[in-house]
Formats: sequence, structure tokens, C-alpha cells
Amino acid sequence: MVYGALDIGGTKIAGALVDAEGHVVARAQRPTPARESAEVLMAAVAAVLDELATRPEWASLSCLGIGSAGPVDTFAGTVSPVNIPAWRSFPLVERVRSHPAVPDGIEPVLVGDAVAMTAAEHWIGAAKDTANALCMVVSTGVGGGLVLGGSVHAGRTGNAGHIGHITVDQHGPLCPCGARGCVERYASGTAIAAHALESGWTPPAGLPATAREVAASARAGDPRALAAFDRAGRALAAAIAATAALVELDLVVVGGGVSQTGDLLFAPLRHHLKAYAALDFTRDLPVVPAGLALDAGLIGAAAAGVAASELSRAGAGTRGRTAT
Amino acid sequence: MVYGALDIGGTKIAGALVDAEGHVVARAQRPTPARESAEVLMAAVAAVLDELATRPEWASLSCLGIGSAGPVDTFAGTVSPVNIPAWRSFPLVERVRSHPAVPDGIEPVLVGDAVAMTAAEHWIGAAKDTANALCMVVSTGVGGGLVLGGSVHAGRTGNAGHIGHITVDQHGPLCPCGARGCVERYASGTAIAAHALESGWTPPAGLPATAREVAASARAGDPRALAAFDRAGRALAAAIAATAALVELDLVVVGGGVSQTGDLLFAPLRHHLKAYAALDFTRDLPVVPAGLALDAGLIGAAAAGVAASELSRAGAGTRGRTAT
Repeated sequence: MVYGALDIGGTKIAGALVDAEGHVVARAQRPTPARESAEVLMAAVAAVLDELATRPEWASLSCLGIGSAGPVDTFAGTVSPVNIPAWRSFPLVERVRSHPAVPDGIEPVLVGDAVAMTAAEHWIGAAKDTANALCMVVSTGVGGGLVLGGSVHAGRTGNAGHIGHITVDQHGPLCPCGARGCVERYASGTAIAAHALESGWTPPAGLPATAREVAASARAGDPRALAAFDRAGRALAAAIAATAALVELDLVVVGGGVSQTGDLLFAPLRHHLKAYAALDFTRDLPVVPAGLALDAGLIGAAAAGVAASELSRAGAGTRGRTAT
Repeated sequence: MVYGALDIGGTKIAGALVDAEGHVVARAQRPTPARESAEVLMAAVAAVLDELATRPEWASLSCLGIGSAGPVDTFAGTVSPVNIPAWRSFPLVERVRSHPAVPDGIEPVLVGDAVAMTAAEHWIGAAKDTANALCMVVSTGVGGGLVLGGSVHAGRTGNAGHIGHITVDQHGPLCPCGARGCVERYASGTAIAAHALESGWTPPAGLPATAREVAASARAGDPRALAAFDRAGRALAAAIAATAALVELDLVVVGGGVSQTGDLLFAPLRHHLKAYAALDFTRDLPVVPAGLALDAGLIGAAAAGVAASELSRAGAGTRGRTAT
């Protein structure tokens, strides 16, 4: 028995077959034709599926999970990835279900990419055996997902855990999402680089102004670069504390490119978390690096086959705003 | 069959027998001897139980829920109500279980008072038939509870939904909890009155500086009083939007004394929510007044009998930070 997985991103469309232990046993990949039409994009997905279908393991496919860059609507089965303009409310679930290579009876399960990462960390990563966890991706943007009561809580439309767009400063800067003071405006790689530049930091000659270069300067002791990471850590801490107060957490897992800077991010994050997570039941919350890296999206999409039952629990299978 | 309920507050200890439709069929009450010893306090609880036990319906008692002012630790079965100093980690569940009038086999279920209110609203109030809801109490303090996937999500220690102490302004004023910029510092009745006073408002001669008086001035058009309610509504909106982004909500229910001011609170709250809840899946979230008033605590404690199975789902029955 293998689990099928698709991972739809702005740069590549990946597919895999994953075994019951979470190992990738087959893989296929195409560049995302991100500026092309909806059908050209779908043709790339079809090519990935067709390539996977040539594998002997395909005959024992038991489910098919799809992780996609967001926003997604798992209730409607549609995706509208910010970086793939031709797909707006694109009915990806229906299109994958009806693709000739996909066996009858296989019901594709769609989740957002941060929820997929969470499912992977909960299955075989840093959140394994944890009942209540927040898993975050701190990268170009900031995303997240929740494990509650031992299973992934994806929410009705698959977007739960959207920690990048919670407000930690109600009078803070406007965010492209429309709100103010969102975590992403402080903690994303983009925000870290922007804040360092605003405070007078400049990258070494010939190098781009990225969070990676800010990190290099911070390691060399540049106070403006260190301040940019401190600011990111503070916003993440306030948001993590809020999440812990709202749902009760046992563990926080942080992955993504910016988290690769290690203590540059984790030290201020943990320092500020002491101040913001001050309630008895939020204190001393462990924050650890992600356990998986490259394949988290695919492994998580595969795990979404299991998570499907949880989606149904969260009301994804009911119509409107009222449970039956 | 009746459900037993205890409601432990700073001013009274109430008990009730509640039928399967959520009606209170018997009731008992004692003033809380809040400044007395732990045992004098327990004697008041015992007196309430003994009085309920004289009722013929007691013979068909099927469960016993306890709602208590917080903090509580439902995992440990203990309560430490802020306004009842002699009870610190007091083993209320064990003491009620072993009280002679409580039948063998009845396992008391403890929840915080805001979670109890949530259970009541979900059972027979404004959140009835709603799969995913945030229920809030805006009063002297600000509390809340969550319904997720059709059942109350109390968290491992029974404190989930603690929206009064999430940070909406990371550089905001220090809160007695130790964090900064907590919702309660803006939206509680105490905070509304304090902010009005600071901006130059004064209560009518001889009347106290309470949120009720601020509301009266606001209705008469006093801009400082109106600003205090606008500030409260903004903080609540930012916190509600954060909660919706984190767990996906279908409905928000707001009760408590300050919510009785009606549109004075609801109008700015809904106005600001439009700005802060800007993601596709958080937009147009309905915010409605609570459906229950006086007996919500008792009815919710009774409903906690049902919620017990949910507590177990959330990991309350497992040891440590790891699910089995």
C-alpha cells in the first residue's frame, strides 16, 4: 500500500509515492509554468501523475493527498495560489479525480502547504506523538498549521493555523492582506531584510539584501541586523503565546528558510516567549526546529489521506455554517 | 435522568440539577466565603451538594459538571480562582467526588467558567448547531471558549479559548498576567472605565466610574466615552480575527456585562473586524450576542458532562506532553 502525494508550489509541481513509514519511494517533478494558462498548468500536474502511474507501486495506491500553495479552499476543492495567477478558484480536486491515471474510488484530499508541512511533522517529524502542536514555516512568508487532540486541525476550508496573518500590533503597518501588524510583516525573511535596510544596514557589495545576508551580518555582530532578528523573534513569540492561550499547546515546531539561521531566530524568539506566554498553562512551551526539510510538502500531502477524516470532523463535509 | 452542576464564583457557589433539554429543575446557592479558609469554602460547596441531594431527581443523577472561576487545571482536577485566595491548586474534583452525597461512579468534570459558558451556548444558546465558534465573556475581565469540529475544545488543562490574554499590541501596556497589550487591558469593563477616566471623562456626581456609567455617557454622545468603547471594540476585533485565522470560525458569540451595552460595543467591534479579518476564510464572520444570561454557568457545567469525552480527545487523559 502506498500513499500518493502532489505538492503544488510556485516554482515546481512535485509528486511522490510514499510508503506507510513516510518514506518517498517514487518521485516525479515538473517546473511550474506559473505564468501560463490554467490548462497548461493542469497539463504539468497531469504529466506528474502520468509519470507516477508508470510505477508498479501505483497499483496499490490507497489515497492521494494534494498540498498546495495558498489560499486553498478544501471545502470547495479549489486552489488560488498567490504566485500562480491563472489559477483562481481552480477546481484542482475535481480535475485530479477525473484524470485518467487516477483509479476510480480515489478521492483526492486537498490541504494548504503549511497544513501539509504540519501533517508531515506530526507523522514522522518533530511533532511526532505530540497531541497539541503548532508547526510553522518562517520563510519568504510565515505560515502554520495546528495539531489538536492528536490530529491535524485543518479547519473547514483547510486554512487553520494561519499564524502569519494574525495581528500582534493593532496599530502596526498595513499588510497586503488588508489587516494591520500581521506577524508576517515582522518575521518573514522579506520583513527581516526590509527592516534591516530601513535601519541603515546594507548588504556586502554585490550581494542581494536578503534575510540570509542579514543573518551573516548578525553573526558578525552588526547591531542593526541583530535588531531585525530580535524584532522577528518578538512578533513570533507574541503570536505563539496567543495561539497557546487560545488552543493550549504542548510543542511549537519552526521550519522554513529563516529558521535555518538557528539561534539567530530561536534565541530572541524563546527570550520574548517567556514574557508573552505568562499564563500557567502557556509557560515553558518548548520551541524546536522542524524535523523534516525538503520532502515535508510531499510527505505531508500523503499524510493528508489520514487527515481527511479530521477534515470531516472539523465540518468540512457539511454545507454552510451549520453542522448537522 | 438529570445532570448535576456546580458553579464556583467569587461571590456565590451555585448548584443545580439540569434536565436533558438544558432546563434548571432544582437549584441551591450559598455566598462564597471568599476570604475564609479552604475548608470553610469547601463546606459551602458541601452544603450546596447536600441541598441538591435532598431532591428526588438526585436519584437519577448521571453526571456532575463543575464550572469554576479560573485559573483551573482540569488535568490535575484543581482550582486556583484569582478571587478566592485560600484555594490554590485546591483538589476540588477529588473533594467533590468523595463527598458522601455524591453517588459512587459519578466522576466530576471540571471546566473553567468561560468554557462552561461556551458549553452552554453551544448546547442551547446562540452557538447551537454551530461547528466552530468562539464564545466570549466581556465583563470585569475578558474570557472565552472554543467550539471546534462540533464540540467544546477545552484543551489539556481546560483553559483553551483564553482570549482575554492574547496580545494585540506587542508594545502595549503591561498586563498583571505578565505579558503586554493583552485584550483585557482594552476591552474589559475595568479597562473601558480606566481609559475613559484617563482621557478626561468623569462620571456623573456621586456615581462610580464604571463601564456602565461610561456607556451612559457614550449614549449621550460623550466623545471620550465613545472612544473608550471604540478602543475596546478594536482590541476585540483584532483578537477575534486572530482566532479565526488560527482555527477557522463560523460564529462569534459575545456575552457578559459589557456586551449588555449592545451596539455601543458591537458596532465598533464589527466595524474593526472588517479591517482585521481580511482573509477569504475569515471575512464576514458573524458576531452575535449570547443567548443565555444568568444560568449559563450552571447549564454549561452540566453540559461539561458531555464535553468530558472531548477533554479526553484533547489529551487530558494522557500524562505529560505526549499522546499515547
